[in-house]
Amino acid sequence: MHIDIVIFDGFDELDAIGPFEVLRTAEKLGADLHAELVGAHGAGTITASHGARLLVDRGPSERADLTLVPGGGWFDAGPGARAEIERGDLLAALTGAHERGRAVGSVCTGAMLLAAAGLTKGRPATTHHSAIEALRASGADVIDARVVDAGDLITAGGVTSGLDMALWLVEREAGPELAEQVADELEHTRSGRVWQAAAA
Amino acid sequence: MHIDIVIFDGFDELDAIGPFEVLRTAEKLGADLHAELVGAHGAGTITASHGARLLVDRGPSERADLTLVPGGGWFDAGPGARAEIERGDLLAALTGAHERGRAVGSVCTGAMLLAAAGLTKGRPATTHHSAIEALRASGADVIDARVVDAGDLITAGGVTSGLDMALWLVEREAGPELAEQVADELEHTRSGRVWQAAAA
Repeated sequence: MHIDIVIFDGFDELDAIGPFEVLRTAEKLGADLHAELVGAHGAGTITASHGARLLVDRGPSERADLTLVPGGGWFDAGPGARAEIERGDLLAALTGAHERGRAVGSVCTGAMLLAAAGLTKGRPATTHHSAIEALRASGADVIDARVVDAGDLITAGGVTSGLDMALWLVEREAGPELAEQVADELEHTRSGRVWQAAAA
Repeated sequence: MHIDIVIFDGFDELDAIGPFEVLRTAEKLGADLHAELVGAHGAGTITASHGARLLVDRGPSERADLTLVPGGGWFDAGPGARAEIERGDLLAALTGAHERGRAVGSVCTGAMLLAAAGLTKGRPATTHHSAIEALRASGADVIDARVVDAGDLITAGGVTSGLDMALWLVEREAGPELAEQVADELEHTRSGRVWQAAAA
């Protein structure tokens, strides 16, 4: 399973780095998962919402099984999720992934990118507590859970819930024992509810 | 309070980014704290243990009130904490900070850098569970807690415990209400014991 974590200027550092570290640790421990940090607009330097600067080699791949977007900048006038919605090409990458039958996902206010791409209407989803009403207004069936797995749409609540989403992915793809090994390596106590669609 | 989070090739991403995001969020919410990611050997590109690449503008400052080191690479032959111990200049920066009466701290196996710098002998400290015996062998008084605050020496357990260490720093410097605001913003449930020296 190939996972692209798509970052952009103004993204929230932990939203992306949390899942990245969980998934990379799982791969090291034997899970058939490979996560990469990629840039929404291709290779280059990306400045996150708290000021960290990251280098990426490429943009989103059409071959990714899961395209995951962090949040950040949803309430700001500057760079971030809201600016990406206006710019449009990240939305096109998300819509394209969905049209090819691939999964998309989000951490925190990254869900508002999925909403703007039209991918949450009538679908179970969650986001950061501050954006719940905006997500509901997109037509999403907002679920009160830390992680919402609707199969081809996987969303997490705020910031650190990305760790629990990634651990859920590890559990789903490689089993609960490996997920516990990863949580133990990171000294992370999993918390909150994972909601899973009955048919997923 | 100025905090330098000193990163190096092979550092563990979350060890550094977790506290960085907590401290930057606290600053945004009004705490008199300023954290920066800096390079152990000055400005440049740094490749973390799971492959993320970060850009930094400068090396450690002698004016930092707290110099914090992440772990990563303690058990590997490649880049990381063990390689930094052999290289030596990060140890010199830590020893120098201590000699100037400034605080030093660590997340995860970053404690082994403090140990190699001679700063844990006879002092209360903790580290990632995998390095506890090595830390004890350095002469440290190993404490069974997620965060150990000995005043001028502040250490955390593995990876995600860095979030709780940073939240403790926010609580200590700016009060429990602000710390709760930050934890709420990050949707993080604080966990584990904070041990604090009686005189601290």
